[in-house]
Order: sequence, then structure tokens, then C-alpha cells
Amino acid sequence: MTTSKVSYLTQQQAKDIDEELFNEYKFSVDQLMELAGLSCASAIEKAYNDRKKYSKCLVIVGGGNNGGDGLVCARHLKLFGYNPLIFYPKRTDKPLYKNLLLQCEKMNIEIIDKIPSETQINLIIDAIFGFGFSGEIREPFNGILKEIKILEKKIPIISIDIPSGWDVEKGPLNDNCIQPECVISLTAPKLCMKYFQGKYHFLGGRFVPKILEDKYKIILPDYMNSEQIVQI
Amino acid sequence: MTTSKVSYLTQQQAKDIDEELFNEYKFSVDQLMELAGLSCASAIEKAYNDRKKYSKCLVIVGGGNNGGDGLVCARHLKLFGYNPLIFYPKRTDKPLYKNLLLQCEKMNIEIIDKIPSETQINLIIDAIFGFGFSGEIREPFNGILKEIKILEKKIPIISIDIPSGWDVEKGPLNDNCIQPECVISLTAPKLCMKYFQGKYHFLGGRFVPKILEDKYKIILPDYMNSEQIVQI
Repeated sequence: MTTSKVSYLTQQQAKDIDEELFNEYKFSVDQLMELAGLSCASAIEKAYNDRKKYSKCLVIVGGGNNGGDGLVCARHLKLFGYNPLIFYPKRTDKPLYKNLLLQCEKMNIEIIDKIPSETQINLIIDAIFGFGFSGEIREPFNGILKEIKILEKKIPIISIDIPSGWDVEKGPLNDNCIQPECVISLTAPKLCMKYFQGKYHFLGGRFVPKILEDKYKIILPDYMNSEQIVQI
Repeated sequence: MTTSKVSYLTQQQAKDIDEELFNEYKFSVDQLMELAGLSCASAIEKAYNDRKKYSKCLVIVGGGNNGGDGLVCARHLKLFGYNPLIFYPKRTDKPLYKNLLLQCEKMNIEIIDKIPSETQINLIIDAIFGFGFSGEIREPFNGILKEIKILEKKIPIISIDIPSGWDVEKGPLNDNCIQPECVISLTAPKLCMKYFQGKYHFLGGRFVPKILEDKYKIILPDYMNSEQIVQI
């Protein structure tokens, strides 16, 4: 754990930084999603290093960018020696997402159509909603989050960017919200992470230019060496 | 140094694997270039860790994919705390390359128009030619490689994928060829690396699916944990 001060972003700040990376710096979604997903897999590998104990990790993929990060994460987990499964109930019709899924399929990552029983999985990776989420949780994700909630006492839950179902700024609005054991904040933590009480909080997405950090007056912990994650 | 057996690819094998990654696995150039460039920066950070001693690294960028890897590498080096400079004499007109360069420029990486004097740089990163190279070395790269050759006794040279100017299979064809201190082979080493006598040989580009390794009967050293490079 580092003790240095860390900034927490509002939803608008997170959106602004994201837009600036794409519009001003001309990063492609492919590029940043690859780095984000890699950092998620790296954090999981750090916290849940025992391949035998945590081999079967279920990645639950949402329909937006958070889901894309999840697909990339699943692929890197496979390369790291895990045996991920993907549950992707609401597929995105964009070419990038189709290709990310195809890459997983061709690497023999099993795509399943429901959450398996608790005996069949060792980790759950929540890649459902990210910092862009607002409003009502629609089906099938409302039901899926209820299923995750039931499993969370038995299986470690890892959320990408924010715990799905949480308000991006206000955190868990009620007791039905999931309480992940691990969160990988991407770019910078969002305000909701002040309410996080799990075991592991990582920062990933090591692509924010120093100039952008200064412009938005955000303080981030120092990454070590060439590492793509840092524990907060 | 690992002692396990490692495969060395012919130029045709390297091209076939590359094509399969793009055509069958539907990886985008953005994705694989990001991972390749990141692995190069990670290897440099491993071998030349002293930021003060090696701060000023000159990245010499060629007109093809090897050059693109170099641009990505420069950006990650900047994020790792180095102070890279870019020399990019023959620019590629494709949007991806323009964007990769813009990302560097916006991150205050200086773009220069000739190789600076030896007192102004601590490392030279050769991102000129990769595994696709064949035939005559044309200007301006013929002259540039001569300049690098003169500097190689004083400044460590790091080549991305293969030492530029070497035959991809037969290695250095004459004494004018550069002799880098470090090479980061991408995907798998090429046959020319059997003639490498420098200090550091890394493998990077950790994106080759196990199925593809088996199909091409290639043996690669095991990457550790979530690391993007492994020393050979």
C-alpha cells in the first residue's frame, strides 16, 4: 500500500480525460483497451497468483468499453496460464468487439451462456459497467449482479474500473450492491472508490501523459519500473 | 539467461505467423504494435535501468512496422521516466503512424532531424528494419547505419526485432553491419540471432497463442508472471 495522496475523479472528469486521450492525443480504442485489459490481467496475476487455486476465472462482459477491457483481460489471463471462461450476454456489434471475442475463441477460451455453479469457478471478473455508467440497471445485468452478489462470499469478485452497479461518484447506493474483493481503477480512481472496503485496489491503464495529469491536477501513485499496475 | 531450447524463425515463417495473427486471429496492427513497443520499452528498462545514466535515448524510426514499434517504445520510455528523442527521417503516410507520432509529440518527446553528437545521447534504439527487410539498404538509412556503426563503441545500441542491415536469416553479411549490445526479438527470434554476440537478448511480443506455437512447432522460453519480456 502506498501512502501518497491519490486523486479521485468525478464522472465528468473521467469522461473529459477519456475524450482528450482519443480526440487530442489520437489514441485508438484498440491501443488503450489493450493496455487497460493487460493491466487488469496483471493485477489479477499479482493478487491471485496461484494458477491452480484460481485457474477458472469467469469474465462477465458488458456491452461497452468495460466489456472490451474484459475481453482483452481474458486473453492475457490465458497467456498468463489461467483458464478463463467468458460470459458475454449482450454482444456489441462493432468490429473491434467482434475481433476481441474472436481472438479469445481462437485461443480456446470457452464462451458460456450463463454463470456456472460456484464449484466450477474460482474467480469472477466483473467487466460489466465502467465509469460511463448511469441510470437504471437493465436486464440481463440486473439479474446477473444479483447472482454475483450471492456468490461474493464464496468466490473473490474482481471489478474492472468500478464495481458494477455502484454510482460512479456516490458508491454503493444500497445493500444489494456487490462488494468486490479487488478493483482495478483505470486511468485514475473514480470518486466511488472512497467507499471501497475490499482487499486489493490497483491502479492500471498506464497511458496518461504527465501533461494531462497536470492539466486536470490529478495525483497518481508512481508506477515502478515497467509495471503496468500499482497497488493503492 | 535461460538454457531451454528456443526456436529461430526463417523470414517466411515470421511472415506467415504475422499474417495469421492479422488474418485469422483478427488482431489489429494497433493492438500488436502496442504490445510489441511496450515489450521493447520494458526490456530497455530492465537492461538499462539507471534513468540518469541512460536518460537520453535516441529512437531511430524506419518507415515500416519496425518504426511503428519504435514510436510506441519511445512513448512508453517517456512514461517510464526516460527522456527519449525521435529521429524519423522517412515518414509513413498511414493514419496509425501519424497518430503514433502525434502521441509522442503531445507528450513532449522531441523530434529531431539528425543524429545528435555522442555527448547528447546515452542510448540508441534502432527501429529501422524488422523481419520483413530484404534487398538493398537505401538512403537515408544506409548513411544512418554507418553513423550508428561509428557510435556503437561508445553508446549502447538496442535493436528492435533484428539488427537493422542484417540479413534476416544469415545475420551480418559484412563488417560494416552494426553490432547491437541488445536485441529484443519480437514474437520469436529470427535465424539471424544465432549470430548475435551482444550482451542482452530479450524476447518480447507476448501475444502468440499457444495453438499457433504448436502449429508452427516453435519453442519459446516461458514468460514469468505477467511480464512482457523474457531474457534468452
